[in-house]
Order: sequence, then structure tokens, then C-alpha cells
Amino acid sequence: MIGGSFAAALRQAGQVGRVLGVGRNAQSLARAVDLGLIDEAVTAEEAAARSALILLATPVGGLKDVLSRMLPHLTDGVVLTDAGSTKAEVVEAARAALGNRVGQFVPGHPIAGAERTGPEAADAGLYRKRMVILTPLPENSAAFTDLVRRAWQGCGADVIDMDAAAHDRVLASVSHLPHLLSAVYMEQVATAADARTRLDLAGTGFRDFTRIAAGSPEMWRDIFLSNREAMLAELADVRGVLDRAERAIADGDSDALLTLLDTAARARRDWRKE
Amino acid sequence: MIGGSFAAALRQAGQVGRVLGVGRNAQSLARAVDLGLIDEAVTAEEAAARSALILLATPVGGLKDVLSRMLPHLTDGVVLTDAGSTKAEVVEAARAALGNRVGQFVPGHPIAGAERTGPEAADAGLYRKRMVILTPLPENSAAFTDLVRRAWQGCGADVIDMDAAAHDRVLASVSHLPHLLSAVYMEQVATAADARTRLDLAGTGFRDFTRIAAGSPEMWRDIFLSNREAMLAELADVRGVLDRAERAIADGDSDALLTLLDTAARARRDWRKE
Repeated sequence: MIGGSFAAALRQAGQVGRVLGVGRNAQSLARAVDLGLIDEAVTAEEAAARSALILLATPVGGLKDVLSRMLPHLTDGVVLTDAGSTKAEVVEAARAALGNRVGQFVPGHPIAGAERTGPEAADAGLYRKRMVILTPLPENSAAFTDLVRRAWQGCGADVIDMDAAAHDRVLASVSHLPHLLSAVYMEQVATAADARTRLDLAGTGFRDFTRIAAGSPEMWRDIFLSNREAMLAELADVRGVLDRAERAIADGDSDALLTLLDTAARARRDWRKE
Repeated sequence: MIGGSFAAALRQAGQVGRVLGVGRNAQSLARAVDLGLIDEAVTAEEAAARSALILLATPVGGLKDVLSRMLPHLTDGVVLTDAGSTKAEVVEAARAALGNRVGQFVPGHPIAGAERTGPEAADAGLYRKRMVILTPLPENSAAFTDLVRRAWQGCGADVIDMDAAAHDRVLASVSHLPHLLSAVYMEQVATAADARTRLDLAGTGFRDFTRIAAGSPEMWRDIFLSNREAMLAELADVRGVLDRAERAIADGDSDALLTLLDTAARARRDWRKE
């Protein structure tokens, strides 16, 4: 979905020539050819030798391996980027695999909420009006960073630059932590002795609050572990507010509780219109 | 909204004669007459003297006072019920105010998610296919409980009976705690030094997870304090799961984390279709 949507959007924008697809699932690759997402399925080594721009849409855990396979075939003008949800670990893997060619790798993260996978889920409009965050390395040349930026802009995305650590902290806050809290809460409800009664009586608030808990356990586990440090830091901050709220309830401190709820309600109502 | 919707639904069902409205806001009462929700605005004392069935849609904090005003005017056949979100405190207030007439009070809770107020928000369909929980007292006669049950059924609701303490615990779990967690999280994001960046990068998961945090701070403060004991008990249980999740992330315990996320995802996917 991530790679196929990128290819489809660039093709629609007239910003791409021949598209090569790499993957472990031969059936998915054949389907991607049938759907016109890619022109040809090749190996990682071939892709490295024949491409001008490479988007790595592999999980972080597999990145180092595929980059290592590509390295011997890379020439100086090839630009690589990725689509991973966390950036510090990606940068570390890229440095370890690419060595003094790491300047050819421009880390990126398209923020597109969909959780589907596979070529059938590819959509040329997936990135339209979405944010893409680049976390350029000191080694990246302006020309290489611009190439990646223009590609994402060609997909219709708004592109901003951030420091990798800041990216990971912000994403831990607005994406990863909500998922963790929603899943933790859902697990507690589902394992209660009277879970059946609870779930029967749950309404629209519950529905919205727990929607993200249905997401892929494997994908989120990988994200949480990849972004461990930022997750733990954000969680500690949220626990601080939770402690305050709990104390206010226990003490019957109406004013403190109202202030906290009021700050939250105002911030949520002021958030960009949906 | 709560009282007006009840009146409108019963009128539509042909289950009501003359409808009397009581309230502190003269303008709202006049509007309720204009809208045909009530036939006449009266005092609490008059309502007590002239009604067969009385629905108290006041906040829990005001319940004891209005019941005390009604008491001298109540005759033996009058049935009272309420619409409060918590039941233990309501039962306590009713006992304190009504004394040996408490058997005429059948505690109830219509679970209708809307957060609007006032006669304009009244809707004859508000309770259709929604749950109403009654928490009958030992003093309630079967005839009185049935009268309240049939009224809610006339509004199109499914009515079930529960113990008041069980009700408060389940509602703390599936309604009050999600609101608290969503608000606590939202407060933490909104007061972060880089709140602007965070809110700009927040997406659809954030949107769903925080939607309930926009709810009325006053209403939710009252609910949390009214349901203090059950809230603290549920929160302790959720903290137990959160501790487990945090430890798994800190220790890089992939299996424990996956098990937790998997339990949550399965439970959410199996939840009744939306």
C-alpha cells in the first residue's frame, strides 16, 4: 500500500518513468504488475543498480538487511528514502548498513493513517493533503533532500523537515501513545469478569476511544519497541497528569478537576476542524 | 433534552396525557411549551401534587433539594424516577429526601450519548434502541418498577435491571474512564512546550481517541465526583495493565507486548458491529 500508492501518485503526476517493485511476496508483486502499479518485479540488488530514487517501505526490522544487499550496487547519484513511523532507529540502521554512502539516504515519514496493506490497497490519492516529515541527515546534500521533497509534493503531500529525535517524540505523543492507552484500556475491559455486560453497555464514547485498539498488533508492537525511549518519556508525562486527576477525584477537589477537564475540552474544541 | 425527549417519545407512543414541565430557566420552559414538548410549566410542588409519573432530569447535586420540595405534596400512587449517570449517590439522596416514601422512587439511567441540553435538543427518537438501566430498590413494588419500565419501552428503549453498585462500576468502566483518560491525555498534549507542532501533526487516530475530551467539563466533573469510588477502583485496574505494558516496552519484551495488543485488538474487532 505505501510503496504502491507512492508509485501510483508519481505516475499520475507524470513524475516517474519506469517503476521497479521489490518484495518478498511474489503474488503481491504479480498483482502490482497487473494493477499497473509497477512495471516490473526485480530483486533488491537490481533495484539498487537500476533506480534513480528508491522508497523503502519495509518494516524497520528489515531495513538494515535490504540496505546491505543494495549497497554494493549503488552508484553515486541514487537517492534512497524510507516511510518508517520512527526515525532514530531507521537512521541508526541506515548508518550501519550504508557507511559512507549514508548521505544518499534521506529519512522520511508519510503520515497516512490507513492500516491496510498490499497492492490492492494502493491509492494514488493516499498522500494528498497529508503531511510528510523528512528528518535529513547532516550528510544529505540539499539536492538529494530536494529530490525526495519534490517527489512527495508530487504525490500531493505537504512536506516539512524535523530533527529525528523531535519527530520520534512528537509521533510518540500524537500517534503511538493514544494507541497504547486505547489498547491498554481495551485489554482491561475485555479481561474483566463481567466483560460481556460491559461491552453490551458500551456506547459511542467507547466506540471512538477504542477504535484504534483494533489496529495490527504486530505493526504497533514494532512501532512501540522501535520508539521505546520517546514512548517511555511521553508516558511518564501522561502519568503525571493522570496522578493529578486521580488525586483530585480521591480528594473531591472539584476546582482542580474542573480546571484539568476545561483545559482538555478547550484544546480539543480548538483543534483544527475535522 | 433528557426530559423533553422523554415527553416527546411518550406522546408519540400515545402513552401520556398532560405533560407538566419543571425547571429553573423560564425561557427554556416557555420554549418547551412552544415546541409542544410540555403542556404547562409548573413548580416542583405542583408537579408533585398533579402527576402520575415524574422523571427527574436534574443533576445529582440538585436531586435531594427538589425531592424534599416535592415530598409534602406526593400521594401514594405517584411514581418517580431519574435519569442520572450514577446510581449509588442518587439512591442515597433519594433515601435522605423521601424517607419512608423512597419506595415510590425507581432509580434509572437512560444511556443516550448526546451531550446537548435544552428543549431545542429534545428528540422523540433519542431513546430508540438505546439501553435504559433500572436499579430498583428493595422498597420498590413490582407495579411501580413496571410502570417505569413500560414508559421507557414506550420510548423505544431496551430496559434492563442491575444492582446500583454494579451499574456504577460498569459505567465507570465503559463511559467515565474513557472520558478521564482522553481528557488527561489531551491536557498533556495541549500543555506540552511544542503543543502547536503536536496538534498540527495529529491525525485520525488522535481525532477519534480525543473526541470525547471535548465534552462538558462541568458535567464530567460532576459524574467523576459522584462516581468516585467506582472510578478509583477501575482506574487502579487500568493502571495495572498500563504498568504491564510499560514494563514490556522498557524490557523489549516483544511477546508480552504482542499478547496484550492482540487481546485488545481481538476484543475490539469482535465488539458489536457499529
